[in-house]
This record gives sequence, structure tokens and C-alpha cells, in this order.
Amino acid sequence: MKSEHSVPTMKDVAREAGVALGTVSKVVNGIPVGESYRLRVEEAIKKLNYQVNSYAQGLKANKTYTVALLLPNTEDPFFASLAYHINLSLLKRRYRMLLCCTVNSDQEQEYITMAQQNKVDGIIGLTYNPNLQIEENTPFVAIDRSMGSKIPCVASDNFAGGQLAAEKLADLGCTNVAFLRIGSSLDNEPNKRKAGFENGCLSRGLSYKMKILNDGEPFEEFTRFLSEHIHDGRLSFDGIFCVTDRLAYLIIKTLRQLNLRVPEDVQVIGFDGIRVFPGAEHVCSTIVQPVPEIAEMCVNLLLQENISAKPPLVCLPVTYVSGGTTREGEI
Amino acid sequence: MKSEHSVPTMKDVAREAGVALGTVSKVVNGIPVGESYRLRVEEAIKKLNYQVNSYAQGLKANKTYTVALLLPNTEDPFFASLAYHINLSLLKRRYRMLLCCTVNSDQEQEYITMAQQNKVDGIIGLTYNPNLQIEENTPFVAIDRSMGSKIPCVASDNFAGGQLAAEKLADLGCTNVAFLRIGSSLDNEPNKRKAGFENGCLSRGLSYKMKILNDGEPFEEFTRFLSEHIHDGRLSFDGIFCVTDRLAYLIIKTLRQLNLRVPEDVQVIGFDGIRVFPGAEHVCSTIVQPVPEIAEMCVNLLLQENISAKPPLVCLPVTYVSGGTTREGEI
Repeated sequence: MKSEHSVPTMKDVAREAGVALGTVSKVVNGIPVGESYRLRVEEAIKKLNYQVNSYAQGLKANKTYTVALLLPNTEDPFFASLAYHINLSLLKRRYRMLLCCTVNSDQEQEYITMAQQNKVDGIIGLTYNPNLQIEENTPFVAIDRSMGSKIPCVASDNFAGGQLAAEKLADLGCTNVAFLRIGSSLDNEPNKRKAGFENGCLSRGLSYKMKILNDGEPFEEFTRFLSEHIHDGRLSFDGIFCVTDRLAYLIIKTLRQLNLRVPEDVQVIGFDGIRVFPGAEHVCSTIVQPVPEIAEMCVNLLLQENISAKPPLVCLPVTYVSGGTTREGEI
Repeated sequence: MKSEHSVPTMKDVAREAGVALGTVSKVVNGIPVGESYRLRVEEAIKKLNYQVNSYAQGLKANKTYTVALLLPNTEDPFFASLAYHINLSLLKRRYRMLLCCTVNSDQEQEYITMAQQNKVDGIIGLTYNPNLQIEENTPFVAIDRSMGSKIPCVASDNFAGGQLAAEKLADLGCTNVAFLRIGSSLDNEPNKRKAGFENGCLSRGLSYKMKILNDGEPFEEFTRFLSEHIHDGRLSFDGIFCVTDRLAYLIIKTLRQLNLRVPEDVQVIGFDGIRVFPGAEHVCSTIVQPVPEIAEMCVNLLLQENISAKPPLVCLPVTYVSGGTTREGEI
């Protein structure tokens, strides 16, 4: 006997939507169906306030409808934005997201093991530990770092972004530019920004110098590098590409302390597309990473059933946005 | 028969640590034990690489060792910091955290229902929907908003923070100040900043004016308000308290567009303690919310077994930090 106020079942949803039970199941489980079917099922789900009991469903299907996201933290604005958009991409497919912030790279292995033992359906990870062990039966999608041919990697097109930065500086009238980098020396995707920038400089005839620090080297090395290139109060560079907006932010402060005006004396372009607050302007002129598209791609690749069809590396297009540290107005 | 490489069990941990099995169980489940016991157990867990199988454990104990966090998003820097610290507080107790970003307040009820059906052990929520229904058997801790006597609310001491802002402006030589607010008119904890500020102004003899906008009212109302208080190029306020750092950030931009210098012509204090990047300076002089302490308190209250002992409202102390939009140097 069914009471008037019983919890709606998948059958009720199928009846309401006028589709087969299997179609509802597919939609609920994130398996592609025709757009019009998906919309009808989603409408019925909403109307009946049908709730997937993922826990019970997990026991039955040996699925948990849960995905773990490994990130260093959510305080860095780029990671914060990734966490938000991956969360939205999962929730709209009725998957739950476990957030695992990895204070240091030692914890990455611990959380991956934990996630596997908790039988998550997959893991999306932005990790730094070069020796991570990932069991083959746990689907994994890596962000920004290739981890072998069986694990898809999703990233911005970092090479094209570096090249775009050089081209923009050339368009903006620069002739003598610098590339500044600090960070992990791990062989990861963002490190392609350098090669792309060099390529752009060469193709546009820009002279360039590079100053590259590894994690742990003092920031003052940049200050010294810049000071060494000041003669009679003038910086010999008219453009600087910084490998992240965070670095650009610090470099702009340093330039101002050295009595150089940005963008009048030197134009600066960063990378990432960070804003102080959502909706506020960018912190600098920047190559913007397509975070919502990266999130969608990670989730799609992770939940795709046909593993053999998964591409090893997906690079998504970046865009340039002026953020007040370049001289667009004058051209 | 036990193989050499079998997965370590709780018994192995107890043997390694030299403690009773029950002590290991308590540590693993986040139940307080003596500090020295906890350290020994944690060391043994690390040494043996013991992994709690929360999923199996959940089936046995009817517990999932999972907590859901409801937040509007992780792109706003204050929410991003909350998500990070709550994640750390849960992970160190070996609880998993489901992140549920609620793009709009309609979704809050949906995610709470979903979390309940997924049998999470509890929910921590920073929500705006005034009509949320929460089942009594799901422990819930609210951030920034009282939701009835059975649901503990954790917040900064917003009243004291407002008062501190007024006192600081008085200490910094201001005599005629303004209070600016935009946001939800919901009866929540952050709205006590206004009363605290008024109280501080009265006790220190500051003249003050207030300009309060509701969500949806155009920001230009603030520009008009400020313009109306400029006579012969001078603003009649020498200090402004903005209800958030985000508002302060926008107001400082507006003041500069009105040819007013910050902090020379007018000093500005915000609220929250936002930095552009972790470790960078604050975006303005500000009342800093104790985010790690808020996170710990939420998790402690949520996982505390004895419900009757839970306080209805916990207000945690705030601090003032100069961030370049006030004139500390001159005093």
C-alpha cells in the first residue's frame, strides 16, 4: 500500500516524464540521453522533488555517486574557483563531491588511498607528489599534470597562453621583455607557459630575458634581477610576463617600490585570471584560464564509461583580458 | 591466516601504540582521549599506514563519517577560507566533507534533503533561505545565522567587531564617520555589526551617518550618498566603516574616482580580513574574522555527542589589522 505522501520513486519520475524507467536511471546516473528526454526527466524530478538516495543506490549498484576532489587548498583564488565549478558540474549530475585539501604533498597519497577505500566512483586531482600510486580500478582525472597514458589530464592550453602573452606585449608596443617564474620544477602543464612565451617572442622579434626561481628560493632574487636592469632610473624591459597572477601582483608591488610606474614605464601580464572578489576587475592584465570549461571537462571524462576513448591530454583555450597593467587605451 | 602484506587493522594500531582497542576507536572517531594517547595512536596510524574504511564502518555503525558543508560558493574569498578550514578540521578527525555549493537559496533545501537522505552524520551550513526545514535527527550547525534554539550558531563576535571599528576610527583621529552596508536584510549575525558600530560611535562621541542598501539596490546609491557629502572638494566624513571588505574595496575605488585620497582624506575600515592571495597583505584595514577558530568550533559542536550541552550561539573574538587604508603611521 502506498500512502499519499510517500517518497517519490524512480518509477514515479518515469510516469511523470512519460519515459522508460531506464531513461530516468540514465539521467540520474549521468549517462547521456537525448536532450529532450533529459529535460523531461529533470523537470519531473524537480516537480516530484525526487531525491536520489545515493547511499542505498551505492550499495545496490556498487556505486557511491561520489567523487573526491584533491586540491592543495581553497584559499588560493584559482583553486577556489576550480573547487566551485567542479562542485557545480558534479552536483548538476547528482554526484556528490568530497573535498580533500592536501596541506602538503605527503597527504595526497593518504587521501587517494582513503578515497579508494571509501569506494568513491572517481577522483579528480590537482596534485604535486611525483610518486603518487593510483589503483587502476579507480577512475582518475588529473588537472595540470600528465600522470601516464591511462589517466586523462585536463589543463588550459598553457603553451598558447604563453605565446599569447608575448604577442600581446608585442602588439602593445614592447620590444624588450622579461619572463619571470617561481614555482614547482615538476614537469607539469603550466610549465609550458615558458616555451610558449619564448616561441611568441621569437616569432615577433622581441628580445627577452628569463629569470626562473624554484620553490623555496627567496623572492628577493626577482628584486635583484629587476634592479640590475635599471639604468638611470629606467628599466631596460618595457614588458614583463609573470607565470601567475600571484607573481604579477607581487612583481607590480616591487616595481612600484623601485619607483617604476605600471603600465606607463613597464607593462605587466600575468596568468590565471584572478579577481579579488567575484565580479570585480582582474588583479592585472592576464591570460584567463577557462575554469568552468576545465571543470566540465574533468567531470565528463571522469564519468565517461568508455575508458579507451579517454584522451590523455585535453588543452582548453585561454583568452587575454586587460586588467589595467597594460596600455590598451593608447593604441 | 594473515599475509605479510595484509592491510593493517585497528588491532594492529592498538598493539603498535600500546593502548587498548577502545582508545584507537575513540581517536579514529574523533572522540576526545588524553593528549598523549591521541599522539601515540596517531603515530601508530601513520607508521602502519592504517586507513579507516569509513564506508564499511558506516554500514556497521550506521554512521557515514561524512559531513556536508553548505555554502553559497567558494569563489568569495571568505567562503573559500571557511571551506578550507572546515575541510582541514574534519579531515584531521578522519571525517569526510561533502561540499554543496548553493548557487541560489532555493537549492539550500534541496541539498539539505539530499544530505539527510544520504545519511550524512551532520551538516554545517551558511544559508540564506529563511524557511529551511531541518529534520531533528540530523545534527546541524549554522554559521552566521541563528536557526532556533536546537541548532547551534557559530559566528564572529560581530557586535564587538562593529564597536572595534568605531573605536579604531576614533583612535585614528576621526570625528565624523559613516557606516555603509549592502546585503541581506535577513536577521543574521553579521547585521549586528551596525549596532556595535553605533554603540562605539556613541561611547566615543563620534558623529555618524548611515547609508544602508538592500540586496538588489544599485551601488550608485552609495556614490550619490558620498557625492552629497562633498563640499568644496572635501568629504565631510573623515572615516568610513564598510560592512564587508568587498564593500570597502568598491567604496575605496569610488572615493578615488571622486578625487578623494585614502587614507589621507578619509580612512576606511572593512570587515572580514580578506587577502588577494594567501600570505599577501589585506585588501584594506579590516576587522578580521577568526576563520580557523570558527571552523574548529563548528566541527566540535557538530560531532559532540551530548546534544543538550550545545550552546545556541557562539561568538568568537575578532581582531583589527591595519591594511593601508587607515593612518596608523601618523599616530
